[in-house]
Amino acid sequence: MSVTAAKGFRAAGIAAGIKASGSPDLALVVNTGPGRAAAGVFTSNRVKAAPVLWSEQVLKGGAVTAVVLNSGGANACTGPQGFQDTHATAEKAAEVLGHSAGEIAVASTGLIGELLPMDKLLPGVAKAAAELSEHGGEKAALAIMTTDTVHKTAVASSPAGWTVGGMAKGAGMLAPGLATMLVVLTTDADVDTPALDKALREATRVTFDRADSDGCMSTNDTVLLLASGASGITPDYDALAAAVRTVCADLARQLIGDAEGASKDIRIEVVNAATEDEAVDVGRAIARSNLLKCAIHGEDPNWGRVLSAIGTTAAAFEPDRLGVAINGVWVCRNGSVGEDRDLVDMRFREVVITADLAAGEESAVIWTNDLTADYVHENSAYSS
Amino acid sequence: MSVTAAKGFRAAGIAAGIKASGSPDLALVVNTGPGRAAAGVFTSNRVKAAPVLWSEQVLKGGAVTAVVLNSGGANACTGPQGFQDTHATAEKAAEVLGHSAGEIAVASTGLIGELLPMDKLLPGVAKAAAELSEHGGEKAALAIMTTDTVHKTAVASSPAGWTVGGMAKGAGMLAPGLATMLVVLTTDADVDTPALDKALREATRVTFDRADSDGCMSTNDTVLLLASGASGITPDYDALAAAVRTVCADLARQLIGDAEGASKDIRIEVVNAATEDEAVDVGRAIARSNLLKCAIHGEDPNWGRVLSAIGTTAAAFEPDRLGVAINGVWVCRNGSVGEDRDLVDMRFREVVITADLAAGEESAVIWTNDLTADYVHENSAYSS
Repeated sequence: MSVTAAKGFRAAGIAAGIKASGSPDLALVVNTGPGRAAAGVFTSNRVKAAPVLWSEQVLKGGAVTAVVLNSGGANACTGPQGFQDTHATAEKAAEVLGHSAGEIAVASTGLIGELLPMDKLLPGVAKAAAELSEHGGEKAALAIMTTDTVHKTAVASSPAGWTVGGMAKGAGMLAPGLATMLVVLTTDADVDTPALDKALREATRVTFDRADSDGCMSTNDTVLLLASGASGITPDYDALAAAVRTVCADLARQLIGDAEGASKDIRIEVVNAATEDEAVDVGRAIARSNLLKCAIHGEDPNWGRVLSAIGTTAAAFEPDRLGVAINGVWVCRNGSVGEDRDLVDMRFREVVITADLAAGEESAVIWTNDLTADYVHENSAYSS
Repeated sequence: MSVTAAKGFRAAGIAAGIKASGSPDLALVVNTGPGRAAAGVFTSNRVKAAPVLWSEQVLKGGAVTAVVLNSGGANACTGPQGFQDTHATAEKAAEVLGHSAGEIAVASTGLIGELLPMDKLLPGVAKAAAELSEHGGEKAALAIMTTDTVHKTAVASSPAGWTVGGMAKGAGMLAPGLATMLVVLTTDADVDTPALDKALREATRVTFDRADSDGCMSTNDTVLLLASGASGITPDYDALAAAVRTVCADLARQLIGDAEGASKDIRIEVVNAATEDEAVDVGRAIARSNLLKCAIHGEDPNWGRVLSAIGTTAAAFEPDRLGVAINGVWVCRNGSVGEDRDLVDMRFREVVITADLAAGEESAVIWTNDLTADYVHENSAYSS
């Protein structure tokens, strides 16, 4: 499963000693071809980690033969030495795999502002290469975890005989712009780089880019899609795009479900917006209200905090036409008191907030989490 | 002190029974003249409470003879009935004071989405009027508290013989746009409405508008400045503006110092920005990073989270020229590791974060708080 569900990929996940805990911390994913088309989407944070700067260059070539991923250190804000370390990591992988470093992507996650222990990382690359396997996808997914409590994988297979699979990590720092998430997707479909790139961008726009756990955008987010062509099948573009979107949506939902300290997963549906962009803006404003996130944690259907958040946006709406439903109960109608809030049942983990802007026909869904004392605790004493 | 420090004002604060706790919940401030010039600044939230909509209209006339303020209910998102209730409040005050309702401002704070108990509020207005006193400023300041743990007042007196005084409430929901803060300032200087308006806007722009406790903007923020002219002195504009700014800065600092659940007051200084607006944008982005606010709570000088926040803005800067000091220790230089983070002493309540954009000569200061489990607790079970 995971990145090795599709044919033409081998993977490994090992403990290189980067994490003091001795947990797995280095993953390697190798495309054995025959194709090597690839696409990538990276953080929109202007402060980018060294591996992001490196991999952006690699992806410009449109081909990736291997990805080295490490947890235990983000290699962000580490200056020229940090970039040299990423370069050395790619060179090491190139050496042991017999490929060009220019087609080897690198991704890192963990604490910002510390250099990676290269004396452990580089031997780890060789060790991982020695353990590459067509069944190594799960181990790779385990090795990229930081504060994740479970590893995350997803697969979509076409009856036509091709597959898209993937793995993801990311528990805190999620936000639009794909924060602290590392995702590698693979497919054995025979697809060229432009189609891969289009399918990946379309998918991330409506999945990872609409998951906003804590409003914080990472320096390291990386989502890669590699195609081996090993199935020998070139699917219809729409079928490929749907499969990539399915796997991205599955992984994004898993990321939200495992967000740091969260006790509620909140699905924010903004409906009847004038434009899709405005629906997204409103959804994000709601998702970023700490007051609302605390209320949801307390199972308090505090719709006033939803309206307060909507009011901070520039979206088209009239305050006295707004509606809000929480788990299907329209507690706010026409900008004022609606159904009895005591009717709202919030005992379950998933909470659905529907915001009706009464301004058009467009809609969007944003996922977020509640804000909890556990989140505060986990992030007051962070070590990856 | 408070709103009665300046001559020409009387005030009262009483328990009208709006709060179930029986605590004081209704304040009345009356300008006995001879002047009645006034200025107001209101929330920029597009979802505005009924008293904000009312008072905005009152202030268009440039004159205010009295302000009725209540805690225990925001009268926001309460539809036409809510507006009628505000109107009735002003009419009641007009009746007992013998003034026109068109010169009576109203401000409310508390839970959103519930109608006020007018059967208690209206008799409360009469009761407060009966208790008006030239020494009533402290009682008025006490009556507007919600989750505040202390009442907030400030005074600046000119040697020339005029005074600016004020009171404020607001503990959570602070944000640019002046969230859930009710502030009444008074002066006995003889000043016309345009000068008052200019002085108030200039002052709030660099004080209340740069306090961002939790990023949430209220539906009810109101800052009023009333001038009685009772000193008979018309100060130089710059002297007036400085006094208003001093009182606003004092009250804003008190608001941050009493923010819900906070254990640290964080002064964010953005320096060497290309423009003042960009300095403010960067300061707000830093102030809104939940991850950073948790780190500060844990006394962790996690400068990577400062850089992550800066990187989300559009301000002019080069990532490899950024610098960050925490309590004077430059833990980040040139976008990378600087001085030893163990040198940073964070034991005290006030924490200073300096972000050097190395892009110009402008600067701004934004105040915020840490994010704590107490904040989560207080806002998971809110009742004003």
